[in-house]
Amino acid sequence: MVYPVQVSVSLKPGVLDAEGKNVQKSLELLGIATESVKSVKTYVLHIEADTTDGATTVAQEACRRLLANPVVHDYSIEVDASGEAR
Amino acid sequence: MVYPVQVSVSLKPGVLDAEGKNVQKSLELLGIATESVKSVKTYVLHIEADTTDGATTVAQEACRRLLANPVVHDYSIEVDASGEAR
Repeated sequence: MVYPVQVSVSLKPGVLDAEGKNVQKSLELLGIATESVKSVKTYVLHIEADTTDGATTVAQEACRRLLANPVVHDYSIEVDASGEAR
Repeated sequence: MVYPVQVSVSLKPGVLDAEGKNVQKSLELLGIATESVKSVKTYVLHIEADTTDGATTVAQEACRRLLANPVVHDYSIEVDASGEAR
C-alpha cells in the first residue's frame, strides 16, 4: 500500500522566522492586519509500506537525514491511514 | 479573538514541482525510497476577528493578494475555531 505521509517542518520556538516576519510586513503594507505569521514547510511523501508504522518510520528517517535540521527545526509526521491503492 | 488560520499553498496538478522532485532524488541517494514527493508551503496566520468567517475572509484576501499565484497555485484555508484568548 502507498501511504501519503504529511511531514511539517517548522522553526523551533525562539528561532527567528524571517520569512514569516516578511510575509506579515508585506500583508501589512497591503492593509491586511495579522497578529503574527509563522512559516512552515510541508512535504507530502508517498511511501510504499505494509503498515502505517512502517511509513512513519521511513518518514522519520527522511526528516532525520534530510528534511529537518535538529538545531533549528521541529517536525511532525501525519500518516493518512486510508492509504492509496497501487 | 485571535484565530490561528492555516493557509496551505501548493502547485496545481500538472505544474512541475521541482522542489518535490529534488527532495525525492536526494532521499533516493540516501537509500530512502518514496513513490513521489510533493512540496507545500504553509503559513499560520494569527488573525484578530470576531468570527471564524471573518478570519477566513482575511486569509482569503491574503492568499489572493500575496501568498498564492493563481496561475500555478492552489490554496486551502483552515481556521482553528477554538481561537486563542487575547
